Amino acid sequence: MSLERIGRVLEAMRRRGLVQMLVSDPQSICYLTGVYVEPFERLFALYLRADGRHAFFMNRLFPVPDTDIETVWHTDTDDPVAAIAGRVNAATPLGVDKNWPARFLLPLMQAVPGLRCELASACVDDVRAVKDEAEQALMRENSRINDEVIRRAAAFLREGVTERACAQFILEQYALLGCEGPSFAPIVSFGANAADPHHAPDDTPLRAGECAVLDIGGRKGGYCSDMTRTYFCGRPSEKHAAIHDLVRRANEAARAAVRPGVPLCDVDRAARSVIEQAGYGEYFTHRLGHFIGRTEHEQGDVSSANRAPARAGMVFSIEPGVYLPGEMGVRVEDLVLVTPDGCETLNAVDRHY
Amino acid sequence: MSLERIGRVLEAMRRRGLVQMLVSDPQSICYLTGVYVEPFERLFALYLRADGRHAFFMNRLFPVPDTDIETVWHTDTDDPVAAIAGRVNAATPLGVDKNWPARFLLPLMQAVPGLRCELASACVDDVRAVKDEAEQALMRENSRINDEVIRRAAAFLREGVTERACAQFILEQYALLGCEGPSFAPIVSFGANAADPHHAPDDTPLRAGECAVLDIGGRKGGYCSDMTRTYFCGRPSEKHAAIHDLVRRANEAARAAVRPGVPLCDVDRAARSVIEQAGYGEYFTHRLGHFIGRTEHEQGDVSSANRAPARAGMVFSIEPGVYLPGEMGVRVEDLVLVTPDGCETLNAVDRHY
Repeated sequence: MSLERIGRVLEAMRRRGLVQMLVSDPQSICYLTGVYVEPFERLFALYLRADGRHAFFMNRLFPVPDTDIETVWHTDTDDPVAAIAGRVNAATPLGVDKNWPARFLLPLMQAVPGLRCELASACVDDVRAVKDEAEQALMRENSRINDEVIRRAAAFLREGVTERACAQFILEQYALLGCEGPSFAPIVSFGANAADPHHAPDDTPLRAGECAVLDIGGRKGGYCSDMTRTYFCGRPSEKHAAIHDLVRRANEAARAAVRPGVPLCDVDRAARSVIEQAGYGEYFTHRLGHFIGRTEHEQGDVSSANRAPARAGMVFSIEPGVYLPGEMGVRVEDLVLVTPDGCETLNAVDRHY
Repeated sequence: MSLERIGRVLEAMRRRGLVQMLVSDPQSICYLTGVYVEPFERLFALYLRADGRHAFFMNRLFPVPDTDIETVWHTDTDDPVAAIAGRVNAATPLGVDKNWPARFLLPLMQAVPGLRCELASACVDDVRAVKDEAEQALMRENSRINDEVIRRAAAFLREGVTERACAQFILEQYALLGCEGPSFAPIVSFGANAADPHHAPDDTPLRAGECAVLDIGGRKGGYCSDMTRTYFCGRPSEKHAAIHDLVRRANEAARAAVRPGVPLCDVDRAARSVIEQAGYGEYFTHRLGHFIGRTEHEQGDVSSANRAPARAGMVFSIEPGVYLPGEMGVRVEDLVLVTPDGCETLNAVDRHY
């Protein structure tokens, strides 16, 4: 249990005028208390109160938490929301975690008429977004492993190999290198499939001249890596080679723009401007990046809509891309850690094709 | 797109007095429309209306759906809830999917003052719960594969092997047998670890006389399998052998009780009575089973709290267990398909240790 982390969350709640909050993201609960439970469809929540009378709401199936926090148990046949309804203070707003599902939230609002529920995940997410030294060390090490996996995967690519076989090879490398698993299902996209940024690997074989987008990450010590490289099978066309150069330049421009105090939308802009100036703006269809840590996508993104400033200790992805429907796609992604005077790029593998 | 399935959902909505509903479970949307998108943290919803003016709410990043349903697009930098707020009818309740997260639900309720949101997943889930013939064929085939995987895993077990190595071996078998992957992370629990029904595989080695619980499933053709067998490394103690016999008898008693019209709580009772009569009732700490199909846990369970009757075409698990803290655990799980006059057990592997 981290009293220091819980203290930072309570301080964020105080600034928002909240005296009670339900944290339901299992990763957030683990971050704050060290207790990790994968609740699947069952209810699992940590109730934080300004007066320190916190409580776990847990199913009897879950292991008994080894903390000083009170535990309120329910079984598979109880109404799991009833215990929460009996505990919250109906007279003051209740902060709610961003992913708390309607199947708990709506019954709670019905059981406690007049209760004002407020989206308050930021109180936890903004604390999680700034990694401490131990977390930074884990993320650095994971990206070093990810570099090694993508090196091996690049060597595995050859004409005729299928996306699925390559994805399977990548999964095996994470296991061989001591990871708990991938941090997300590997994206392996060849040729026209790469025009879909989230293409799922299928039986498409790699053909001469085509691009191969590998967007992969592993999980070790509870933290995630995530990177993308785009290769070609043999020689790319001049047009495709130029697009690769462009995306790489956009990636570099964005990384050069990162330092504490710079609004994240400006980092997005730095990459997007490079791509727009080359006339490919409409083919860069997504935000520049996302936060990462205990899950592969954490709250917070690097997009034109996020005016929040970068802060030292944040880790996020820089992943510009150009996607030509029916033809190909290129994405080059690195994780960066914001340092006091700029950023450290956690991936070191060559970005060229 | 399945007009027949959508029609059944609209009929269920009509019976509840709903003329509009947001379906957000990606598997439900795929079931109804054939469009599968993994939205991660982005918004993806299917808006169903009694008058047939359905709409997708989708991020520009997602592939263009090939259906007759209107698509309302947003980008990463738009407010994704605004489009929904502009479309729903504030004068009549809106059905909401059980897993729709607070980060969309609360802003929608704020954007449309007075909108009454109702948990209405059952309108879709009850339709999904009854599998048609094509789905039944897929689930039968998947359980056949699962039987083969557990046979291989049982042969792989030997003194000294670790839970993690066994789990990795199991994952490889699903790949070798043509599955898209596991339907959930394999549970491999040796000895005292098996007292936790959801134990995650670690470096614990199997020791002589200890139990080995294997709870595993694969996904193929978009459908899931799930089964559990409990083995012993060499000879179990008499006490542990007797517990295994007991759990097997409970499994058999429950399967014998399944037929259309029988309340699911009675199926739970059939297994629980056997275990209670032997004095182990307090060590059977969970519901008897859960529904399964496109995901490994679908809505609906076999528990004392569910008085709904079994219906032909339903597929659920029968998984009694006895868990002795600090000592061992036994679980024996099969999937059953409710038939017009009883049930078909989809798993055929010997249930003995």
